[in-house]
Parts: sequence; structure tokens; C-alpha cells
Amino acid sequence: MALNITQKLIKDHLVEGNMNPGEEIGLKIDQTLTQDATGTLVMLELEAMNLDQAKTEASAQYVDHNLIQEDNKNPDDHLFLESAAHRFGLHYSRPGNGVSHPVHMQRLAKPGKTLLGSDSHTCANGCMGMLAMGAGGIDVAMAIAGEPFYVKMPEVWGIKLTGKLPDWVSAKDVILELLRRHDVKGGVGKVIEYFGPGVEELSAMDRHVIANMGAELGATGTVFPSDKEVKRFLKAQDREDDWVELTADKDATYDILEEVNLSELEPLIAKPSSPGNVVPVRELAGTPIYQSYIGSSANPGFRDFAIAAEIVKGKNIADGVSFDINPTSRQMLTDLVQESHIASLLQSGARMHQAGCNGCIGMGQAPATGRNSLRTTPRNFPGRSGTKEDSVFLCSPETAAASALTGKITDPRTMGDDYPKIKEPKHAEANMDLLDGPLPYEDAKNVELKKGPNIASIPAMDEMADRMELPILLKMGDNISTDEILAGGARVLPYRSNLPEISKFTFEIVDDTYYKRGKETVDKGGHAVVAGYNYGQGSSREHAALAPRYLGLRVALVKDFARIHWQNLVNFGVLPLTFVNEEDYEKLASGDVLVLEDLRKKIQEGNEFSITVKDKNEQIQVKHSLSERQIEIMLKGGIINWAKDRQ
Amino acid sequence: MALNITQKLIKDHLVEGNMNPGEEIGLKIDQTLTQDATGTLVMLELEAMNLDQAKTEASAQYVDHNLIQEDNKNPDDHLFLESAAHRFGLHYSRPGNGVSHPVHMQRLAKPGKTLLGSDSHTCANGCMGMLAMGAGGIDVAMAIAGEPFYVKMPEVWGIKLTGKLPDWVSAKDVILELLRRHDVKGGVGKVIEYFGPGVEELSAMDRHVIANMGAELGATGTVFPSDKEVKRFLKAQDREDDWVELTADKDATYDILEEVNLSELEPLIAKPSSPGNVVPVRELAGTPIYQSYIGSSANPGFRDFAIAAEIVKGKNIADGVSFDINPTSRQMLTDLVQESHIASLLQSGARMHQAGCNGCIGMGQAPATGRNSLRTTPRNFPGRSGTKEDSVFLCSPETAAASALTGKITDPRTMGDDYPKIKEPKHAEANMDLLDGPLPYEDAKNVELKKGPNIASIPAMDEMADRMELPILLKMGDNISTDEILAGGARVLPYRSNLPEISKFTFEIVDDTYYKRGKETVDKGGHAVVAGYNYGQGSSREHAALAPRYLGLRVALVKDFARIHWQNLVNFGVLPLTFVNEEDYEKLASGDVLVLEDLRKKIQEGNEFSITVKDKNEQIQVKHSLSERQIEIMLKGGIINWAKDRQ
Repeated sequence: MALNITQKLIKDHLVEGNMNPGEEIGLKIDQTLTQDATGTLVMLELEAMNLDQAKTEASAQYVDHNLIQEDNKNPDDHLFLESAAHRFGLHYSRPGNGVSHPVHMQRLAKPGKTLLGSDSHTCANGCMGMLAMGAGGIDVAMAIAGEPFYVKMPEVWGIKLTGKLPDWVSAKDVILELLRRHDVKGGVGKVIEYFGPGVEELSAMDRHVIANMGAELGATGTVFPSDKEVKRFLKAQDREDDWVELTADKDATYDILEEVNLSELEPLIAKPSSPGNVVPVRELAGTPIYQSYIGSSANPGFRDFAIAAEIVKGKNIADGVSFDINPTSRQMLTDLVQESHIASLLQSGARMHQAGCNGCIGMGQAPATGRNSLRTTPRNFPGRSGTKEDSVFLCSPETAAASALTGKITDPRTMGDDYPKIKEPKHAEANMDLLDGPLPYEDAKNVELKKGPNIASIPAMDEMADRMELPILLKMGDNISTDEILAGGARVLPYRSNLPEISKFTFEIVDDTYYKRGKETVDKGGHAVVAGYNYGQGSSREHAALAPRYLGLRVALVKDFARIHWQNLVNFGVLPLTFVNEEDYEKLASGDVLVLEDLRKKIQEGNEFSITVKDKNEQIQVKHSLSERQIEIMLKGGIINWAKDRQ
Repeated sequence: MALNITQKLIKDHLVEGNMNPGEEIGLKIDQTLTQDATGTLVMLELEAMNLDQAKTEASAQYVDHNLIQEDNKNPDDHLFLESAAHRFGLHYSRPGNGVSHPVHMQRLAKPGKTLLGSDSHTCANGCMGMLAMGAGGIDVAMAIAGEPFYVKMPEVWGIKLTGKLPDWVSAKDVILELLRRHDVKGGVGKVIEYFGPGVEELSAMDRHVIANMGAELGATGTVFPSDKEVKRFLKAQDREDDWVELTADKDATYDILEEVNLSELEPLIAKPSSPGNVVPVRELAGTPIYQSYIGSSANPGFRDFAIAAEIVKGKNIADGVSFDINPTSRQMLTDLVQESHIASLLQSGARMHQAGCNGCIGMGQAPATGRNSLRTTPRNFPGRSGTKEDSVFLCSPETAAASALTGKITDPRTMGDDYPKIKEPKHAEANMDLLDGPLPYEDAKNVELKKGPNIASIPAMDEMADRMELPILLKMGDNISTDEILAGGARVLPYRSNLPEISKFTFEIVDDTYYKRGKETVDKGGHAVVAGYNYGQGSSREHAALAPRYLGLRVALVKDFARIHWQNLVNFGVLPLTFVNEEDYEKLASGDVLVLEDLRKKIQEGNEFSITVKDKNEQIQVKHSLSERQIEIMLKGGIINWAKDRQ
């Protein structure tokens, strides 16, 4: 049977399930990436599961998010991540090396491989003929420990590229066109696969731009072929040997088919405050701006900065405009310096920032209140810039640079006939020593983890008891979000690597006595919570399961669960139960004690069983929907214990 | 009479008083500089005093401190400062242009002139044959409005430089040697004037290094001659016409005399946590480091970065070391890019940061907990780096770069015989358009101030009433600091441009009902506070006088005052009184009401008068020590009103 590239990649890595769209499959993971914002917890999970050495072909820990060091927390994290990478046999990319996605592409990406990363833009490396996917931290930890990644078999959405990009139109406009057509949920459950003659017109880094923002379409992944251009890219990185060809079979088919004629595109822009809010730039021409921002993994390439430099060269940025340049990697910054592009940018009035994610994730470069900011970044959700009342537009470097000169949103085609031609350096400047390779095992096994005062190991968790007597500490209504279970934000997130500390905020919004009352149950067998519909909606943060578990939560009994939080509860050993008869919800009150007998046997024998409400002489019928693997995980007390036993 | 340079500068600018050391003199101010951390309040003061146009020869508003934009506050401040600079006829140096002191030196400094700046390192421009002094914000506001600056006539401390710096020893080691000899109070009440054959061996920027850290000796200023080297420097900046020669008369004398033989110096380092804690580098050789940091106005020169680049060129920074490069100006960064030094730094593993003050003032680059940080910055007070448990050493770029390579404190002389020779570019690269010149008056007068939601005008304040009935809201003990009156820190400082908001924190530590009770007195004639000895010690922040005044404080009656806070009270129209008989302190209680009659006449007629304690039938004898000018200021209700009437 003729296969497309996505199907080939999946077939090559399939370890469980069948390739029918919508069915769960298990995939072998070859490579992982973690960044510092999510990586500290991943490393603590690896520690807790007693991992000795990473079982992937290549795993890398990047430091690109928390580069602003206003106190000890971020630098302490960096030292911890470096020591953990050394201990577990990962590559370590030090602060200043740049954003994970382009650096991974430059140094480690290999056609034909799978990549799992604890960052939603991991999909960017699909530009290299890889199946690259973003996932939660614990999923990546499991992959590093050699376990498969479970995901629904996607549909494959073939997009045929034809034609050639006109002057002043670039890769960013291609993905903005798809967002214009399909909005931010258009790719859910799908892998987007590009093919056709137009692919050859795009450099590997242009494809990165397009693959990166597949995340904004909600896609599981984006796949480009591994062709001569990928070979050229790898050669420039001294990695020609890592190249293999990977293209779709001649008669390959796609679940969905679409065409984009590159020749017909024009400069596009996403208005506040959604990446799907796309219109032609010309429709907004003349709107005054405060900021023009070049950088991020959505426009990380040499050409993205070089074209901006050529556009502003010898001219002045408009008064009152902050023209912020956020280089994406050390290597690219060096090339840009050597080719005089940085000097052109500086002399025009640009502000040069350190290589990293920076303003793209709200770490610096926040715009002034209510003023328009043009950015080449992938997202413009409200407030993501750091400024509450922000007004962020997404566009190409061409549009951003042209607008910086005029101080107004400007269609770059009005800059004249002289579209600068950018020549990438044939051989990228790179000091290979700066992405530390994994230590030899003999050295690695003796590395001690360096933990600053704000980094705490995940405490050992006991396995599931056979008999539980659990007081109900909270009875909640419908739609309790993970923000109510454990808030995000600047007050809480700094403790993301410190479970004992972050747990102090658990359910704080719902009932600020929970922390104290929960903690008291830890040595007495734990407690339960009860809630209505849609329990655990919202952000996928794992701490919202891990922190209550740390405080003794063993059972959540609700009308129904939001999907991701349900999975997180299973992973951290909290038994998620629903009512067989929803009216039983009314029978329960805060303070009641649930008695669960023969539990280990019962959850293995069937999906339904009954529990007793002590002192009330009530029986309540409950059910679970755990798979066999998840039952195993639950019995062990969570996925960390489960993985520990498999080391 | 033969004069030294300091005496010449003072004589040329003397408008009041006599040149006897220790006596107050009034000096005409030719130039001012403000930075963004202190400048917003200065601009609000100019607004409050109805200033139309700056009366100085050149005043510049720099943006170099608050460059990290995590929310709207800093960018809103930048827009406000730009609009205020345009309105009042100041130069505006946009974010990215760099640190005020080197940029001022490059673009505006003129031999023979006086410079007053709201930044303690303003003294750095003494390298250009100027009398350059740091001062409080209101002093600078007054100077911009054309008023003299009042200061005690300093002693002149002549330091004769002989010999020539050995290889691997540089200007930073000269000032560290003086700190080693005299510690951090050695310069109090003095202007340090350098002369002798060794001066010729130092470039203008080397002299900047030495003059800058005169602040750490506590000196009023540092003065270098304006000689051929200053002429060369100005020529490289296309400003040869701004040069005049300025040297000491042949038989000039100094109040104090000392010699430093440059040939005898060796690499020095200040240990935690004082700039005066200086030892030879060799004594600490081998101590492991976490960070090596090049930058700040204490080592701002092209050569300071270039020498570091030459030392690390083609080598790798030690694993685990954060090698942070903080360029000091756009111009210098461009030169460093063009001369390939930035590429050398990047390829060795350096982290490039934006041009500005950054980590020197705790805005980024904080070190990991308890780990050693080597910095070329001027200060290493505990916690100033942003990390509470920090361990910061001050040294030259040579020592910092050598140590970055080895990962340990390293005497740079051990790097071999091949001391790199640095050639400064003959002509500095600079886009002159980026330091906005003052707007033509016709345009300036129509500029509206742009105020973000966190910037509030200073409310009008009424003049001193002739009769007051003031309830005592607080009775305090000895040694109340300005931190207790109005705390600094991350919770309070973001409101520095918003008097109504920042006043909410007033006396919070002493009595958190003060804000509410104080505000209630505003429309009823105000209130008083009573305290013991040393009232208002500590930080010189003006908000500690302005905020209580805003809340109705009209009289502070204490046993004695700390000097600077006393001055701030006068400036903001709070009458500072002391007890004639200190035992009267015991007679007063919180809640008592002080009655002051015929006050306007009484404070003009003499220093002592009596006030009544209502309902207690007590008379209390009090005194003031206001000068005639200060009495005038007090009658008007503060210096802003006083200045307003002079516009």
C-alpha cells in the first residue's frame, strides 16, 4: 500500500494499536526535548523514578524560557538542569544557546525520527521529515525512560503547495493563510503534511516557520519531506551524514486534501487577540504602532533577521517605536554579526536582546498599555505579552520591519521593487562544544543533582491501599478548573520545582483551609473530594493533580471529568471515579467518610463497584474507566512508581 | 593665586558662598542627566512647577535602568519620559542607546562644564574635565529649572599618577587600589583630582572607569584634566569643537596629596560584600565561580569588552559558568560587532544582553544562590545582584575573562606573556539621530505628556498656613529609617511615578492605620508626627517626605533629624522642628493636638518659638534650623511651589 510520509513515520514507530484515525496508538520515541520552564519537573520525575540513563537516541535539555535572572530562582534552575542533564545522559544547551526548536533543528534533528517535547511548538521540527509532537512533562519523562507515547492516530491532511512566493511575501504568510482559512481549531486530530512542487521553493528554515505554527491550528504535528534542501541544511551544519531521504510514495493518499498556490499569497497579519484572526496587511495600513518585534521560534531563521536588517539598513526606526530584536540561537546570532546584519539593525535604532524565547512567552518586551505591537511570534492571546491591556498583531519579518520604519502598519510591498535577496552563509558558524553532549556513563552515574533552595525532590508516594477510609474534604459544584485547583501566575509558578511549597496554594480559591486539612490526612490514609460536571477543565498543568495527591488526595468522585485532568489524576495515582447514579451526588456532604473495601481487586475485576458512606448507612455505586495499563499504574500509586519498577 | 582644576571649575560656576571647605556654596549647573528610575519623578516635578523649557545648556533623559518589560509599567514610563523630554526641551536617549554615563560622555560631555545627575555615578563624567556630581531628583529638577545646586565646598584631594600600568593590569585596578587604601568613606567631602605624568597613560575611557568609582569612595566628584587625550576622544566622536583645554595651574596646591605609581599595581579584587574589601587577585586564585560579568558604567569602554574578547577568542568558557556580556552603549556595541569582538565572545559561550545597566542594578543576571559572581560593576553590597544570598566580587575585565575560561578566580597574569593590545576604532560608529535633540520650542510647547495608567501628576500643594491645629498621628522612638517611613523594594517601587498609589505604603511598618488616618486630615489642615533621635536615617529617597506630605503631614517634631531626610522634608514643605528641651518628648502622646499660632511670622523672626498642646495646657518650646532660602521655600509650601513662582 502506498504511504504518505506521516503514515511511514507512524508505521516505523508503532508499538501498540492500529493505524485507524481516532484509535489510540503507542509510538516509540527516538528523541526528546525539554525546556527550562517545564524541564525542572521532568528532571525531578526522572529522579523520582530512579532513572539511570536516558533510553532515547538523543534527548536534550534546553534553557531558553527563564533567562531573566532577577533573583536566585532561575539561575538555580539552570544549575539543576545542567546537573540533571549530565546525570541522566542528556544533551544540555546552556543559556545563551537559544530557543530549543531552532537549536534542536540545527544540532540534533534527524529525518525519519520521532521527537517528543514538553513544549507545544515541538512540532516545528516536522520541517526535517520528523514526526515531532508537543506533550505534557510526564509524557516526555516516560519517553526518556523508554516508554511509548500514547496518542490518537491522526488523520493526515495533505496540503499541496504550488507556485512560488512573490517578493515581500514569505513563509509566515503561508501559515497565516492557513489560519485565515481554518482558524485555530482547524488542525485538531490531524497531522498536516506538505507536498507538491511549492515545497522545493521553501528553505528548511522556511518550513520550520510553517511547521511551528501548526500548533496554532491545533494539529498533532506537521510533516515536510526530507529532500535535497534538508540535505543542504544538514551539510551546512556539518551533519550531512544524518540525512536520509523521506518522501511520500507516488500513489500516497491523504484523509483530507487542499492546495495553496504560493504565487497568489499576499502579506497577511493576525489581529488581536487570536492567531486565527487573519486579514491582509493592506487592510490595516496606517494604524500607528508602538513596537515591532522580530524573533521567536515562529520566525527563527537567518533570513528572517537578515531581511529585516536589509529593509532598515541606513534608515532610522520611527521615533517612539521600540524595534526589538530577539535572536533565536547563538549560531544564528554569530552568523548575523559576521554578515554585518546586526550592525545594520543597531544603527537603525534596534534594541538587541539575548538569544532565547523572551517576549514571545511574556518574559520581557511587554508593550505599553493599549498600544499596538507587531510581532513575528506565533501567539497573540490576550495578556500573553505581559501587558494586560495589550494589542498584539502577528506578521512576517518583512511587515514588521517595514512598519518599524514608518511607525505605522505597512504593507511591505509599498517599500519598492527592490526586494532584498538574502544569501545564507554556506557554512553555519557554530562552536559545537556549547551544546554539551551526554557525559560518558562512567562519569554520569556519579553526578550529583544540584538543588538550590527552591528545588525539592518529589517525595516517594505509596501504592494504592486495598482499604481506604477517606473523609470528604471538599464538596464542589460544576466546572471547577485547574486554576481553582492550583492557580498559575507569578505568585505560584516560581514554585513549580518545589512540590511542598507549591502545594500550599492548592484549592486556595475554593477553600483556604484545604492545605492544612489535607496535610493532616496524609499519615491517616488520605482523603477524597467530590464535585459536579466538567471537573478539572482548563489548563493542562500537572501540578493540579500532583499537589493534591501530595496532600493526601486519593479519590476524586465527580459527575464527569475534563479529559486532560482525568489523565493527570491517573498518572499521579489519584483514583478518578464517577457516579453511576448522578443523584447520589446530593447524598454526600463535606465531612462524610467514604469507605472503599477490597479496592485493588475491585478495580481490576470490573468498572463498577460500590462504596459505603460511613455513619450514614448509605451505599454509593461508582465507576472508573481505566485501561489495563492505567489500572496497573493506579495499583502502583502512580506512573512514577510504575516506571520506577520498570527501570 | 594658582588654582587646581577643581577650584577653577567651582570658581567659574560659583553663584553663592565662599570657597572655604565645608561651607555651603551655590553652583551654576550647565548640564543635567536623569535616568529612567529617577527621571519619572523629576519630570513630574518639572510638570508640577510649570516649567516651560529647560534652562540648562544641555539636559538629557536616558532610559537605561528599567529595560526589562514584564508588564506595561516600564514601557509606559519610557513613553512618558520621551514625551516629557520633548515637552521640556531635553535630549531623549531611547532604550537600547545604553547607560547614561558613557553615552553622555560620548555625545554631550564638555570640558569646563558642570553636570548634575540623578544617579550616584554621574561623577564618571569628571573624566572629561567636568565637575560632575550625583544628587537627588528634586535637586536635578531645580537645576533644569535654572536654580543653583547647593553643596558643601569640598576639599581637593590631589592624586599624582606616575609610572605606567603593567600588562594585565588596567584602570579598574587603579580605583580598586584607592579603595584598598581608603575604604568606602575615604572620599567623603572631597573632590578627587588626578594629575601627574601617569594621567597621559590613561585613555579618556580609562579615566571614566576611575572617575565612576569615585562614588564608592564617597567623594563629591572626581576631576581629570582636559588634555590631548580628551581632544582625541572628542574628535573620534565628531565633536572636536567641544574641546577646551583645562589643566591645573603650575603651582596649584591640594588640600590632601597622594601618589599612585601605576607601575607597581597588580590585579586587584573586591571581596563580598563591599567595594572597599580589596585584596590582590592572586590571594583568591582557585576559588570556583558561577558567573563572570563584563559591563556597567564602571567598565564601559570599547577596550573593556575587546580585551575580554581577545582573552577568550577561540577558547571555551568553563562548563557551568555564565559569562554575561552587558554592552554599555549602542555605539560601542556596533563598534564591537564591526571589529569582530562580539563574534569572539559569542563563540566562546558568552551570553549577550541588551545595552543598559542590567545586572549592575539587579535587573537581570542575578547569580545562583551562594555561588561566586565576578563582576566589573562598581558595587557588591549584599543582595544588590538580586539574589539574597549572593557572593559578588568586583574586578577588571582581564580578571573576569581569565576566570571565565578556567571556572576559577584567576590572576590574568597567569594567561601568559601575550597581553592583547587593543586598538580603538579611530572613528566611532554612531547614528547621531538616535539621541533625540531637544525639539524646537515651537513644537515642544505643544507636546502633551503621555501618561500610562501608573503615572500620576503630583497634586498641587497649598502654602504654609499661619495657624495650624495638628493631631499627632504617630509617636515614634529613635532611629526611624526612611524604609520604615516608606519602604523600597519590588512591592512599592513600581509605584514611584504614582504618588497617590505609593502613599498607601506610608508608615505601613510602623502603623498600618496611618494611611487612612492621615488621608482624613488632608482637608482638615493636616497632622503632625513625633519621634526621637536620628529620625529619617537611611536611604535618601524623596518619596519618604513627599508621600507623608501628600497625606497631610505638616510638622515633624523630633529630637534630631538625619541630614538628608531633613532636607527632603524642607523641600516638600513639611516643617522640621526639634525640641528645645528633649524631656518635652515625654509630655506628648499620640492623639494630642499641637496648636501653632502666627507661624509664618514666627519662623521668619527667629529659630525658637513655642507651641501649645491643646487640652493639656502645656507649652512646648521648639526650634528650626532653616536658612533664609529654606524659610522662603517653607512659606510657599515646598520647593515645587517656590520654583513655580520663579518660572
